Amino acid sequence: MSTRPVAALSEIRAIMGDLPGASAEAGSAAATREATLTKPPGALGRLEELTQWLCLWQARHPPRLDRARVAVFAGNHGVAARGVSAYPAEVTKQMVANFIAGGAAINQLCLSADAELRVYEMELDRPTADFSAESAMSEEDCAKAFAYGMMAVEPGLDLLCLGEMGIANTTSAAALCCGLFGGSAGDWVGPGTGVAGEGLARKIAVVDAAMTLHRAQFADPFEVMRRVGGRELAAIAGAVIAARMAHLPVLLDGFASTAAAAVLFAAEPHALDHCLVAHCSAEPGHRRLIKQLGQKPLLDLGMRLGEASGAALAIPVLKAAIACHNGMASFAEAGVSGKTE
Amino acid sequence: MSTRPVAALSEIRAIMGDLPGASAEAGSAAATREATLTKPPGALGRLEELTQWLCLWQARHPPRLDRARVAVFAGNHGVAARGVSAYPAEVTKQMVANFIAGGAAINQLCLSADAELRVYEMELDRPTADFSAESAMSEEDCAKAFAYGMMAVEPGLDLLCLGEMGIANTTSAAALCCGLFGGSAGDWVGPGTGVAGEGLARKIAVVDAAMTLHRAQFADPFEVMRRVGGRELAAIAGAVIAARMAHLPVLLDGFASTAAAAVLFAAEPHALDHCLVAHCSAEPGHRRLIKQLGQKPLLDLGMRLGEASGAALAIPVLKAAIACHNGMASFAEAGVSGKTE
Repeated sequence: MSTRPVAALSEIRAIMGDLPGASAEAGSAAATREATLTKPPGALGRLEELTQWLCLWQARHPPRLDRARVAVFAGNHGVAARGVSAYPAEVTKQMVANFIAGGAAINQLCLSADAELRVYEMELDRPTADFSAESAMSEEDCAKAFAYGMMAVEPGLDLLCLGEMGIANTTSAAALCCGLFGGSAGDWVGPGTGVAGEGLARKIAVVDAAMTLHRAQFADPFEVMRRVGGRELAAIAGAVIAARMAHLPVLLDGFASTAAAAVLFAAEPHALDHCLVAHCSAEPGHRRLIKQLGQKPLLDLGMRLGEASGAALAIPVLKAAIACHNGMASFAEAGVSGKTE
Repeated sequence: MSTRPVAALSEIRAIMGDLPGASAEAGSAAATREATLTKPPGALGRLEELTQWLCLWQARHPPRLDRARVAVFAGNHGVAARGVSAYPAEVTKQMVANFIAGGAAINQLCLSADAELRVYEMELDRPTADFSAESAMSEEDCAKAFAYGMMAVEPGLDLLCLGEMGIANTTSAAALCCGLFGGSAGDWVGPGTGVAGEGLARKIAVVDAAMTLHRAQFADPFEVMRRVGGRELAAIAGAVIAARMAHLPVLLDGFASTAAAAVLFAAEPHALDHCLVAHCSAEPGHRRLIKQLGQKPLLDLGMRLGEASGAALAIPVLKAAIACHNGMASFAEAGVSGKTE
């Protein structure tokens, strides 16, 4: 992590009341062109909605997807020591090395989608505190993580995909959801990388303990993040805010990535209008969370890997939507007859 | 259409009993490698199944997807004169011209997926007969269409996507489904390009009339195709058979494409094991049909265009699956720790 100027959480809270809206003009230009293209109206289904959404949030027509960035934030969690993951905590660092060497799934998915991959390693040798016993982060640590995430947004990007790597972070994601939206720990906790039986029971107990400890402070979503979140999750939320300011549409990935963004939704119900959940994870809490956010995932392919894998996989769908919208002929250009009724 | 040697329908029926199976060896090689890759087992969900399926039916490991062909068969239907479509019959020919000029959705989707597009125009000036009054095709016409479709398979292809264009062919598809799988006409007929009200009622009545007229001969699925199908639909079925013989996996597209292939399923329940339904159409009969075939579509994006659009859109998902399988590092190569339990 760099030593850039750190926004206080209070500054971030203030931004939430002042997020830019969609470009009605670009949306209207998209709708006008869409109606002329050589296909029955609506026949491209969600591809038409995607084009519209990209125009609204890129604030331009025609939409463009030349430069997609995949940002993967990695953090370590003190709660990992409680035996909530099927893998040891050192795997976070090992997987970051694997990302850098090009050996992970996300490397291949980025190559396949012609997207650029950026990996953001967040003090892996200094895990957050065990949130079942104390707050995961100090106010300063949490604000710094938000600010760090904001740096993933740079001029010239057309799409931002947000993912994470962090052993034990589905435990943190479940705690975020439980803290933000209520329900029992069991409603939100799932197998993650593959815990079952006693491991799963431990994971539920850890989230239960965290709820009891921190519940009184959950009215403020940012406080939920600080208390039971993690650095990589706060960074994702920061990146979502920065993307909104920069007219940059966002693809959220799986359970952890969506839970991180959900903190903003809880603070301001329109905060994620420029974000789409790209893929519904096999992690059971994700489907519940997606419903809570009023989202409809683009893909549902039983993946549960994180790393922004589901988001990267959806990039070609967005590219295809744009190709159709920008490249198809109109009925008039092609000399095709219109509807008879 | 060319004047190539024509297989009799009896020859095609005979092939159905002698279709090659999957390569267990290639499937096993895929499973062995998959287990070594740096991700929790199963974490790539359906991508892992897709790799396995491609290996089984390409009969090789590693799998490859360098050359994907999209074949769009176009035919005209006598039943169009009954007012079952929202568009006039001349649109079939106009859209073929649009495919050739590069202005249709499928052109853009093929560019986007780096797939080659072949358009097969099937005697558009000689529509099939109105199947609500007589058989759509003669024995010779139908066999010729099967044989014509087989020509879409050539050496060197890695994947074949099968789609169609033909005004009124969702009426034909609904009749095929009703003839093959039973149920009422209303179970299978839907809006197609956008008929509603009286148009939809006419469409149901036309299929009802066809059922009454031809029902006695429906025990033979090929007879269902000849009586209520169409040239482009028989060609798709022919292409599916030829692909099976050539170890070429197939992506089926929407309602019409899947209904055409369903004729083979009705003749031999394993005939479509090398085929995947790429996308579940918004045309309501498609979901019912997919269930009947025991398939699980890859995408569900509300499209209802035909032209192989849903199949072409799924190509990048298959490419991504292969990229992960072939390109990821193993735990040993990357020095990543395995599961602790």
